Amino acid sequence: MSQHLLDALSAATAEVNQAIHVVFEGQRDPLKLYDASQHLIDAGGKRLRPFLVLQACELVGSRRDAALPVAVAVELLHTFTLVHDDIMDDDDRRRGMPTVHTVWGTPLAILAGDLLFVKTYEAALAAPHARMISPRRRLKILNLLTAATISICEGQALDMLFEDRDLITEKEYVTMITKKTAGLLATSARVGALAGGGKADQVRRLGRYAYYAGLAFQVIDDYLGVTADEAVLGKPVGSDLREGKKTLILIHALTHATDAQRQQVYAVLGRDDAAPSEIDAVNRILRDVGSLDYALTKAHRFVAAAKRQLAAFPPSPTKEILLDLAEYIISRKY
Amino acid sequence: MSQHLLDALSAATAEVNQAIHVVFEGQRDPLKLYDASQHLIDAGGKRLRPFLVLQACELVGSRRDAALPVAVAVELLHTFTLVHDDIMDDDDRRRGMPTVHTVWGTPLAILAGDLLFVKTYEAALAAPHARMISPRRRLKILNLLTAATISICEGQALDMLFEDRDLITEKEYVTMITKKTAGLLATSARVGALAGGGKADQVRRLGRYAYYAGLAFQVIDDYLGVTADEAVLGKPVGSDLREGKKTLILIHALTHATDAQRQQVYAVLGRDDAAPSEIDAVNRILRDVGSLDYALTKAHRFVAAAKRQLAAFPPSPTKEILLDLAEYIISRKY
Repeated sequence: MSQHLLDALSAATAEVNQAIHVVFEGQRDPLKLYDASQHLIDAGGKRLRPFLVLQACELVGSRRDAALPVAVAVELLHTFTLVHDDIMDDDDRRRGMPTVHTVWGTPLAILAGDLLFVKTYEAALAAPHARMISPRRRLKILNLLTAATISICEGQALDMLFEDRDLITEKEYVTMITKKTAGLLATSARVGALAGGGKADQVRRLGRYAYYAGLAFQVIDDYLGVTADEAVLGKPVGSDLREGKKTLILIHALTHATDAQRQQVYAVLGRDDAAPSEIDAVNRILRDVGSLDYALTKAHRFVAAAKRQLAAFPPSPTKEILLDLAEYIISRKY
Repeated sequence: MSQHLLDALSAATAEVNQAIHVVFEGQRDPLKLYDASQHLIDAGGKRLRPFLVLQACELVGSRRDAALPVAVAVELLHTFTLVHDDIMDDDDRRRGMPTVHTVWGTPLAILAGDLLFVKTYEAALAAPHARMISPRRRLKILNLLTAATISICEGQALDMLFEDRDLITEKEYVTMITKKTAGLLATSARVGALAGGGKADQVRRLGRYAYYAGLAFQVIDDYLGVTADEAVLGKPVGSDLREGKKTLILIHALTHATDAQRQQVYAVLGRDDAAPSEIDAVNRILRDVGSLDYALTKAHRFVAAAKRQLAAFPPSPTKEILLDLAEYIISRKY
C-alpha cells in the first residue's frame, strides 16, 4: 500500500470514528442496547465505504466535511448488515471480537442491528449536512442509500439460498455479489460525489469505479481464501469450502473440471469436518483446472475497468489515491 | 363503533392495501424473501396507523392521496417491528397466522423484517409523493419517521429488560409504551398532517391527539387482558400475567397491595404453567386493590385529553370520525 493511500485511509478513519462517536453520544437509554449497537463499530474495520464517500466528494472538487454525515451513514449501514448477517450465519467472531449476538443474545442483537439501520438515516438526515446540500440533493442521496439497502437484503437472501443449490452460474454469482457487496461500494462513491455537488456523469463514473473495485475486491477475497498464508489471513484456509460457499473460483472449477474432479470437490464442499488433506486436494484441483488463474485474470480486468472510469478526471492527489486503492486491491495479501 | 367510523376505516384499509400491493409488485427476486416480507401484511391487521395518517391529512384540509405514500410507509414500519418482535419474543401466531420465522425460519425472517424497514423509506420517498410535497417537508417527514423508529427500538429493549426486573414504576411504564406504541401513533398523525400541508400547531395538536389515544389504547389492551371474555379477545385471559408482563394494572397492584397479596401475585407472575384458579385469584386481587378501576379511570382521562386536542379544529365529518375513534378505544370489547 502506498504511503499516500495509507495516510489518507488513516485520516479518514479518524474523522469517521470521531463523527460516529458523536452519533452515539447523548441519552443512550437503555444502555445495553446502545452498547450492543456500538460493539462492532468499536471493534474497528477498514472503513473502506466511508473512505470512498469522502474521496469521491473531494474528487468532484468539494470540501470533504460536506460528505462526512453521509460517510457515517454508510458505515452504520454496513455495520447493521454485519450484525444481522452474523446472526443469520451464526458466526461467532468478527473483527477479532465475539459477534454481537454471542455477547448479548439474538433478541438484543436483532434490535441492535435495527437501531444501527435507523441511525443510518438519522446520520444522513443530520443537521450539519442540511446547511451544505440542497433538500433535493439530500433526497437523491436518501434514495440511493435506500435502493442499495434493498439490494443488500436481496443479495444476502440469494447468498443463503445458493448454499442449498449444487450449481450456480457465474452470472448468478456476479448478481449476488453486486447486490451484496459491490452495490454498496458503488453507492458510497455516488453519494459522496452527490454530497460534493458532483455532476451526473461524475457521479456515474465514480459509482462505476467503486463497483468494479468492489467486484475485484470480492474475487480477490475468494482467491485469498484458497491461496493465502493462514497466519496472515486471520482465518483458516479452506473455510469457504467447508461452509459450502459458491465462490467464482468454485463455480469455474465445477463447470470445467472432469467428472472425477467434480466428484472429489462435491465430496468436500460444505463439510464442516473436512480434513486439511482433503482441502489441499480440492485446492490442487482448483489450480489444475485453471480456476485460480481465471479468478486472478478476472480481478485484474475489474481493476483495470475501475481505473479507466477515472480517466475523465484531471490529475490530482485525490485521484492518485483512488488509483492506488484499485491497485492495492489486487496486491493485498489479506 | 359508529357506522361513519366503520366506513372510514374500511375505505382507508382498501386504499392502503392497494397501495402496499403496488410497493410489492415488480421484480420480487428472490421470491422467498418477498413472500416472507408480505406474509404479515397479507394477514390483515387494523391499519390503524395509516388510517391516522390519512385522516390527519384530510383534517388539515388536503386531499388524502397526498399522504398515501406516507400511510403505506407507516404500515410497513409497523409490520417490520412486528416481524422482528415475534422473533425476539418467540411468538408463534400473529393476526391468526403463523409468524414469519415460524414459516421461513429465523434468518430469512430477520431479512424479511429488514426489507420491510427499507421499504418504509422507499415508500416515503416515492415519486407520487414528490410531486405534491416540497422537498423540505418531505425531509421533515423522514426525520419524524426516523425519530419514531429509534424510539420503537428503545421501547422494545426496555420492554425486554423490564421482564427481568421485579418492580417497574408507573413513570417507567409510560416511558416504555410511549416509545414502543404511542409514539408511532403520534408520528402517524403528525406526518399525515405534514403531508397535507398542515401548520405547525395543527401538526402538534394532531400528534398529541394520537399520542393520548395511543396511551388509552394500550391501557385498555392491558385491561381487556384481565377482564375480557376469552372467546371474544382471541387469546387466553391471563397470558400477560403468565408472560410476566408489567402492565399499568400490575404496577398499580404491586404498589398498593398488602404484603400477603403481593406475595400471591409474585407467586404467579411469569409462570407459564399457572393454573386458571391461580390466575383468577390474582385477577381478584387486581380488582380488590382497585387497580382495574385505576386503569379504567386513566384510560378515560387519556381519551378526554385526546379529544380536547381537536377542539381547535372546526366541525367536519373527518373530525367527527377522529372523535368517534377516541371513544371507540374505550368502548371496545376486544
